[in-house]
Amino acid sequence: MNRSDRFIDACRLLKTDCTPVWFMRQAGRYMAEYRALRERHGLMKMFLTPEIAAEVTLQPLKAFALDAAIIFSDILIPLQRMGIDLEYAQGEGPVIHNPVRTRADVDALRVPDPEEDLGFALESIRMVAGELNGRLPLIGFAGAPFTLASYMIEGGGSRSYIQAKELMYGEPETWDELMRKVSDMVASYLVAQFEAGARVVQLFDSWVGCLSPSDYRAYVLPHSARVFRRLKKAGIPSIHFGTGTGDLLTLMREAGGDVIGADWRTPLGEAWKRISPGAGIQGNLDPVTLMAPRPLLEARAKEILDQAAGRPGHIFNLGHGILPPTPVDAVKALADFVHAYRPRKGGDRLPCPS
Amino acid sequence: MNRSDRFIDACRLLKTDCTPVWFMRQAGRYMAEYRALRERHGLMKMFLTPEIAAEVTLQPLKAFALDAAIIFSDILIPLQRMGIDLEYAQGEGPVIHNPVRTRADVDALRVPDPEEDLGFALESIRMVAGELNGRLPLIGFAGAPFTLASYMIEGGGSRSYIQAKELMYGEPETWDELMRKVSDMVASYLVAQFEAGARVVQLFDSWVGCLSPSDYRAYVLPHSARVFRRLKKAGIPSIHFGTGTGDLLTLMREAGGDVIGADWRTPLGEAWKRISPGAGIQGNLDPVTLMAPRPLLEARAKEILDQAAGRPGHIFNLGHGILPPTPVDAVKALADFVHAYRPRKGGDRLPCPS
Repeated sequence: MNRSDRFIDACRLLKTDCTPVWFMRQAGRYMAEYRALRERHGLMKMFLTPEIAAEVTLQPLKAFALDAAIIFSDILIPLQRMGIDLEYAQGEGPVIHNPVRTRADVDALRVPDPEEDLGFALESIRMVAGELNGRLPLIGFAGAPFTLASYMIEGGGSRSYIQAKELMYGEPETWDELMRKVSDMVASYLVAQFEAGARVVQLFDSWVGCLSPSDYRAYVLPHSARVFRRLKKAGIPSIHFGTGTGDLLTLMREAGGDVIGADWRTPLGEAWKRISPGAGIQGNLDPVTLMAPRPLLEARAKEILDQAAGRPGHIFNLGHGILPPTPVDAVKALADFVHAYRPRKGGDRLPCPS
Repeated sequence: MNRSDRFIDACRLLKTDCTPVWFMRQAGRYMAEYRALRERHGLMKMFLTPEIAAEVTLQPLKAFALDAAIIFSDILIPLQRMGIDLEYAQGEGPVIHNPVRTRADVDALRVPDPEEDLGFALESIRMVAGELNGRLPLIGFAGAPFTLASYMIEGGGSRSYIQAKELMYGEPETWDELMRKVSDMVASYLVAQFEAGARVVQLFDSWVGCLSPSDYRAYVLPHSARVFRRLKKAGIPSIHFGTGTGDLLTLMREAGGDVIGADWRTPLGEAWKRISPGAGIQGNLDPVTLMAPRPLLEARAKEILDQAAGRPGHIFNLGHGILPPTPVDAVKALADFVHAYRPRKGGDRLPCPS
């Protein structure tokens, strides 16, 4: 089998020679090559310079046997082009200096044009797709409407999402208008990434796990669904990801996505049941397991692969991004283990040349 | 029906005249009376002075129609008596200046004697129990072994629990020894609280939702189970609480507790199914809902009560503590609403004089 098809075929729920694997934040601070570039350029310049973003994207592919590249960027970058004053503060994570709190704030936001406003990101996709030249697929991505909207409202990270939920509950029309603008931006941006050479796109609803299923259905699902309808219409395979979403998985599946991401809080088999039939699953190892002794790391990976039991449609990944203190050799070992492992059931697969 | 029995009877899965209600952190910063005391004394003095802790405990009972008091304290307070250097830093939350990282650190921890080392807390329980004089039950509490151990290791709040999980994975014997010491402390402390006049105790495993079910079973369940066995043997009714635990509920039930707490991320009916038969359920309104317009607050409370459908064993609560910006009148309205509401099904209950 052509290795370039392994990941794409799994997204289509087709049988593959072995389980495809990639890692969220596979280009990141745990790699010395990445840290060197970051020290030299700073985060913002890395995101905005196509050559650097392309170089960072390719770093983990040189080090590990991964089945997909994911473009190096950040979900908050497009918000700058909507009028958000964004800074990556040292050690604090992203800070938004003009949080969105009122209807007037929402009305002032513009919906960027991908080619015109986010050309640098599309250019880095073109460069990476050219470099990969069909040998491996490239994943494009964007933040999901809820996660982006709540970042914009809270102005940064949050523990209880009080401001975001207060706007959602108290001013549902303002909330809807904000979500509409963000959804429009996200949908056009993802379509443009596909046209630039991304083969699959992932929607990151990283914070959506703070919501009750009732709130998700009322305030989020319609907007995420609009994004996925645009993707489907354009024939773009998609992954729908969140964390802490055990009891949202069914609704996330309803909103859309060919593959649904799950984190380690839900056993993979159980998560797959909740989104079946018809959807693939991505996940779901706890990223901290990469810091565990090797036998435990392999035992946990095995548990996940055994639950998937070789059914078509499983993409191995972590439940969230690789953490900075992760040892590089554990990442390599895990990718190799996934490729070589023969699941307990459905034993019609052979060890696979990664 | 004697109002004093409503909460206790629900803990025993007995039929009650209406659904009992109390709120985690019902004594807290959202109340002006509380803020006045806090400004005068500071947090640590409030925890360590029985008269003040007793006064704070009673504040919400004077303002709202609640069915239980919960002693004013903090889950980290007993750690001081184990040798932990704890500070409630202004605006930052608790900080531990000597985090536990090695086997030697664990060996140096002492297991406090409740009467000798935590007498101030038991004294405030005696004072409140005396004051309530059977009119309302008093809840005692402690942190669960996992949440306390991870606080001790991380030294404060955490996002990814890297240090705690590294110790758990990498040095399972050190982990077990730490969990054993913490469990012993917790069990004796809860028994002592019961003997001092608490009628029910709640174990707060607030952080346990960061774990996969496999990790919970391997590293946490045996220790929490030891605590609950001690409680059961002593005939002490108990509540087992955590957040983000949708897919841990079955295992938490297995660990123990007459009533299991669930947060808003899991629909109450679904959560109750996962811990059935034989356990009551506590929860599960999103605390931010208290900041929503009144009709939405009532609609969400109604959803929860309709899912419980008047079956014996439901204690209405939030899914986590009351947040500081919560309006006092919303808390009052919610308690009254719960008492007055007649669920959609099982309509054999009458509006209830709170």
